Amino acid sequence: MVKAKLLVIDDDASVRESLAGYLEDSGYEVVQAADGVEGLAVFDQTRPDLILCDLKMPKKDGLSLLQDIVDGDSSVPFIVISGAGVMSDVVSALRLGASDYIVKPVTDLVVVEHAIDKAMERVRLLAENEAYSERLEDTNQQLQATVETLEADLRAGRHVQQAMLPARPFASRGVGVDYALRASLYLSGDFVDYFELKPGVLLHYIVDVSGHGVSSAMVTILIRNEVNRLRTEWRYGISDHIEHPANILQHLNQELLRSQIGKHATLFIGLLDTRQRYYCYANAAHFPYPIVERDGEVLTLERPSSPLGLFEKATYEEHEFSYTGYIALAFCSDGVLETQDNSSLAEREAHWQQVVTEHRFHIPDICTAMGMDDVTEAPDDMTVMAVTHWNSES
Amino acid sequence: MVKAKLLVIDDDASVRESLAGYLEDSGYEVVQAADGVEGLAVFDQTRPDLILCDLKMPKKDGLSLLQDIVDGDSSVPFIVISGAGVMSDVVSALRLGASDYIVKPVTDLVVVEHAIDKAMERVRLLAENEAYSERLEDTNQQLQATVETLEADLRAGRHVQQAMLPARPFASRGVGVDYALRASLYLSGDFVDYFELKPGVLLHYIVDVSGHGVSSAMVTILIRNEVNRLRTEWRYGISDHIEHPANILQHLNQELLRSQIGKHATLFIGLLDTRQRYYCYANAAHFPYPIVERDGEVLTLERPSSPLGLFEKATYEEHEFSYTGYIALAFCSDGVLETQDNSSLAEREAHWQQVVTEHRFHIPDICTAMGMDDVTEAPDDMTVMAVTHWNSES
Repeated sequence: MVKAKLLVIDDDASVRESLAGYLEDSGYEVVQAADGVEGLAVFDQTRPDLILCDLKMPKKDGLSLLQDIVDGDSSVPFIVISGAGVMSDVVSALRLGASDYIVKPVTDLVVVEHAIDKAMERVRLLAENEAYSERLEDTNQQLQATVETLEADLRAGRHVQQAMLPARPFASRGVGVDYALRASLYLSGDFVDYFELKPGVLLHYIVDVSGHGVSSAMVTILIRNEVNRLRTEWRYGISDHIEHPANILQHLNQELLRSQIGKHATLFIGLLDTRQRYYCYANAAHFPYPIVERDGEVLTLERPSSPLGLFEKATYEEHEFSYTGYIALAFCSDGVLETQDNSSLAEREAHWQQVVTEHRFHIPDICTAMGMDDVTEAPDDMTVMAVTHWNSES
Repeated sequence: MVKAKLLVIDDDASVRESLAGYLEDSGYEVVQAADGVEGLAVFDQTRPDLILCDLKMPKKDGLSLLQDIVDGDSSVPFIVISGAGVMSDVVSALRLGASDYIVKPVTDLVVVEHAIDKAMERVRLLAENEAYSERLEDTNQQLQATVETLEADLRAGRHVQQAMLPARPFASRGVGVDYALRASLYLSGDFVDYFELKPGVLLHYIVDVSGHGVSSAMVTILIRNEVNRLRTEWRYGISDHIEHPANILQHLNQELLRSQIGKHATLFIGLLDTRQRYYCYANAAHFPYPIVERDGEVLTLERPSSPLGLFEKATYEEHEFSYTGYIALAFCSDGVLETQDNSSLAEREAHWQQVVTEHRFHIPDICTAMGMDDVTEAPDDMTVMAVTHWNSES
């Protein structure tokens, strides 16, 4: 540890030197001055850690010197050591912020040392507090920079994920598709996709990968690519899996297990054939169940199979039904139901169904009604999608 | 603003009340006490913001009262207002930490008010500093939590990306492949993959997507999937692009442009046929150029084509050469050369080539020699890969 440097100012050389000698023996570095003018000069040159100052001195008295030092915006502590003077001197010293006031003759030098210790301790505490604040400021700046780097990284990732989502809304030959997706982090473990397999035949799916964020988003890319691969295989006549929702799930389950990523997903996939007016679907444990309004009747598509990526021997069932007039379907991820607090799951499902039918499967209105417009920090990703074929020609 | 509450303690009722009256008129809330004992009780009950205290009082004098309050660990400021007494009283007050010492009779009450203002100002500054530190601590905790959330997200993403990298090292029928990949962030824009297309025919590539982190990593997934798709198409006899490095690049360029992600990439892809002993490659602007040692001769594979994802009309050239004895290839991303400071690019390339040949294309040794073992915060992703066919039977 560096020795503290003390400046002793006294015009009485014997007093000054005996004090300096004692303090040097006690382990301090000591500089001296014989009056206020010299004191100020030595102070400027040596920048001591503490000043011990007499009051009555030639050229410039102690209070005037201390006033100059205080005015110079120095926070150096000082102790007045003065002969029995007037009360007003002590009051002045107090007002200037003296750490202590010791009356001469100093018979016990331990008293001086104790006063020095106390003053230095206070300075040390103040310095520690200041250093603590500075450390906090530094840490904050570093953390802020880290957050900015990570967030920029994630924003760029989000941009890529957005680019992989299909165009919306879709409307062609009486078929409409629309969706909305709110990520709880920058990237989403929810994903939707759809495309016309043939004119009037629309394949569409909603997927919810376990967890959320980057890792889940990466799995959505894998799933999207695998579905696209099946589409390519179908185009070239290699396989017709893409025409069979259950086969698609079977394939995705195998791929997810094979990837050894340790992620699973729920996925509902439907094939709407508007020419034949039938709907075919398979459900890999996706919940909430899709809502269908078909020719005036509202029902939910229950009957789920296993999630993807968990069971090697999972099998997937395909279900189908037809309609004569119109069909409208609404899908959502479980995050959507989580926004409604204080109600049972059954109540929340009922509310969702009511919102969907009341707003005629219109996604922007459904989002507003479900409170998805102003969600900033959702605990889970939230996705809604609607597929409609209102055309009532037969 | 809430009025400051002052506690006035004086046994002289007329002095006390005139002071209290004046201070109330000045906008303070004032509580009073007539001696030290009552003063302590009122202090405990009312918790004033500042104390104005006489010294000489019955029951308990001022210094004793102030000592109790200081000992009680209170940081309330206090001002002594006392009749002309002894110097030692002022010294005691100073040592207790009095904000000021005013000598009675108080002829100008403005002096008292000024002393109060000064003391309160100091308290306010201290409180502000404390509040500032607390705010910093809070911000710190929040930032720390944010960083932890984001980092956990990215770590999980990294895990997924790692799962997509091929197994290493690979060794089969005299062919060896090994690689090392260091991400500058959690996720990497560098990627490598390889697989045996047929027995003894090894397709391998190194890709460096513009930027780094999540978005670049997502593009590596896309590229990997597209290459796998071509492999599938080839298996089913739909296309033989996978057998022609230039066609693969052509396909990837189109896919990247089509995705509208706004990312481009450099990619070197090679096809090593150990049965025919020939090597065929195409280079989408990948740099540094791969190093080949072929039958005792060392050369670099220059002749690059355009990067992927930038130019709609980019064309890719294919090059090939044969060997009779053995072949060894080393690839690296540009991040590897960036670790060597203070040298020209040509010097760095020469160094890389020297390291590769000196260490006989052995990845762990090359990593050590290139200083990749203890890299913690690289400015760019760093990847090295070696493909060897040492077998010298003809």
